[in-house]
Amino acid sequence: MLGNFTYCNPTKLYFGKGALRNLSNELPKYGKNVVLIYGGGSIKKNGIYDEICKILRENGKTVTEIAGVMPNPTLEKLYEGIAIVRKANADLLLAAGGGSVCDYTKALSVSAYCEEDPWEKYYIRFEEPTCTILPVGCVLTMAGTGSEMNAGAVITNRKTKQKIGHVFEDEAVMPKFSILDPMYTLTLPHYQMVAGIYDIFNHICEQYFSGDDDNTSDYLAEGLMHSLLHASRVANNDMQNYEARSNIMWTATWALNTLISRGKSTDWMVHMIGQAVGAYTNATHGMTLAAVSLAYYRSVLPYGLPKFKRFACNVWGVDPSGKTDEQIAEEGLAAMAAWMRELGLAMNITELGVTPDMLEGIAQSTILLPSGYHVPDRDGVIEILKNSL
Amino acid sequence: MLGNFTYCNPTKLYFGKGALRNLSNELPKYGKNVVLIYGGGSIKKNGIYDEICKILRENGKTVTEIAGVMPNPTLEKLYEGIAIVRKANADLLLAAGGGSVCDYTKALSVSAYCEEDPWEKYYIRFEEPTCTILPVGCVLTMAGTGSEMNAGAVITNRKTKQKIGHVFEDEAVMPKFSILDPMYTLTLPHYQMVAGIYDIFNHICEQYFSGDDDNTSDYLAEGLMHSLLHASRVANNDMQNYEARSNIMWTATWALNTLISRGKSTDWMVHMIGQAVGAYTNATHGMTLAAVSLAYYRSVLPYGLPKFKRFACNVWGVDPSGKTDEQIAEEGLAAMAAWMRELGLAMNITELGVTPDMLEGIAQSTILLPSGYHVPDRDGVIEILKNSL
Repeated sequence: MLGNFTYCNPTKLYFGKGALRNLSNELPKYGKNVVLIYGGGSIKKNGIYDEICKILRENGKTVTEIAGVMPNPTLEKLYEGIAIVRKANADLLLAAGGGSVCDYTKALSVSAYCEEDPWEKYYIRFEEPTCTILPVGCVLTMAGTGSEMNAGAVITNRKTKQKIGHVFEDEAVMPKFSILDPMYTLTLPHYQMVAGIYDIFNHICEQYFSGDDDNTSDYLAEGLMHSLLHASRVANNDMQNYEARSNIMWTATWALNTLISRGKSTDWMVHMIGQAVGAYTNATHGMTLAAVSLAYYRSVLPYGLPKFKRFACNVWGVDPSGKTDEQIAEEGLAAMAAWMRELGLAMNITELGVTPDMLEGIAQSTILLPSGYHVPDRDGVIEILKNSL
Repeated sequence: MLGNFTYCNPTKLYFGKGALRNLSNELPKYGKNVVLIYGGGSIKKNGIYDEICKILRENGKTVTEIAGVMPNPTLEKLYEGIAIVRKANADLLLAAGGGSVCDYTKALSVSAYCEEDPWEKYYIRFEEPTCTILPVGCVLTMAGTGSEMNAGAVITNRKTKQKIGHVFEDEAVMPKFSILDPMYTLTLPHYQMVAGIYDIFNHICEQYFSGDDDNTSDYLAEGLMHSLLHASRVANNDMQNYEARSNIMWTATWALNTLISRGKSTDWMVHMIGQAVGAYTNATHGMTLAAVSLAYYRSVLPYGLPKFKRFACNVWGVDPSGKTDEQIAEEGLAAMAAWMRELGLAMNITELGVTPDMLEGIAQSTILLPSGYHVPDRDGVIEILKNSL
């Protein structure tokens, strides 16, 4: 049954070539003090930084910067940002980067005036913000996380080796606006592109592989998967194909902006295991997901057979005639594995730097969520990790 | 190519059994004066009216009513509503009904303080509102139009026999909130249910059958069609099936809230012809669309062959082997016709009361839009109407 739910997603999106010019529509809505937040500096090389600064100047903004947001933004960096944002008396936090920069900026927006330690409040107790939430705008430079249109923020605590995501319920945490120019993604290295593609694909899978209801969300998920599979193959052969890259960018947004989880249960265990691998190796997020997916899905397949069969037929075009449900389902995962190899994704955690002595620790820091087809215990996670080596 | 676009859809949706209780979350956001707007009074029979009034009372609202909004809301009724809304000094317009009531309420929200005649401004010159836009909330009692989450409003001018829809660009015209309880739709007569289903299906088709780009929107459209086809068959056999009715209601929202038209061209000629039929006959909207669809699509099929072929294979599961593209495409439309007959939809305009002497007038009042696979001229529209008799 389609369960009860609320849906609200007010982020205004400007999509397409030259979309950055729309920043001028948005800036007048906010006060003078803008904190510009970015990562390792690639936006300085490709000219995006200069363009943004020009528009900020034209709009008479006072700009403070937070640079060097890392791929897995740390709690230390969050504390550092809080001090800067408070000192700047920020009216708007403007993220320019990929999902990590957007995530970091949203975490900052609910942490700057948090009455207590934000790690404790948001990442241990998973509470909603009770303080002022600073408005966030995003200029997206990578496709993958969907962070540009959701209320999620993943933060890594290096001390405790925990990488935890919190999806806030309050739509006030969502960016007020996001600017999505697919041209910005054309300069990404192949490795980053395919990692992003797999992140998108797995976001869809995490929401698809749970529940046995008949649900519009699963049909929308299949539509997104078809679009992504097609575009990923085109882009893998021709990284400069704007059409493919724009469809990948748009698919990423809808893969994780709450739409395809409405009224149904979701899984997210691949992310839990992948994030634990990420906390131990600092490997690229999408690659950690790819490296543990097949072992995980093979482990839950017997418990969610009808959905894995549907996945095989509806997504991968497996012909079911004369086969058992198990054979059909296995063929679907085999087709998925072939596509992953075609893209050049990480097919195991060994190539990401995981060694057998780490498995116990990774399993210990894996959060076990209760809503997939089968919830592994610690030994089950270790087994999945072993099968991913 | 995925063209440039903007997407923003801030309507907050409360979906599911008992969702009306959430009205109490929303009412405190608005002032004291609420104008409650509804249709022929079915909400008084099924108890929804009493429930809404109770919640309004509990929230201390002063309520004025506009009753009797008709299935094709007229310009006269709009003028009548403007006077009532002004006199009541309305802070919130609360629609309780189907698409017509929601459309009427949105038209009212931009017309109440319009500086000039709203018909001239919005329906002849298609301008955006420049006056105060009153906030709108919807309690939806029928699934079909998608009016609960878009900025469109269709109004009929009885004097000039014109039924014209305007989809406003400003997201401020979208409802602030909509309450969608599928239970409310269970009491609809079969005729209304299937008319709503076809309206939904045609909304998807209007956006699908245009352009030859490779576009995520078309994949999402196919996902919605699959969900709707499945749920419509279940509901046709078992009208009380909550799961099917809830999926139909949710599909309706996403079929026309701008998502599946992003970055692509759209057609809308079936609606233009159907609305002209509606202006002449006052027939149920979805049935006018059903009655002209097949003749229209057969007339444009040669100009959009690849998309009609894709429709046949991806939506209707037509096996393409050993067939010409034309044969495949025709088989798709034949499968669609079979599904329409299965539901008991109007298969021609004769059964809706159209006689041959009306065709000239209907064709004259049909608006010709330029973005489908082939734009008919007046003679072309008459030919389509003849083939629909």
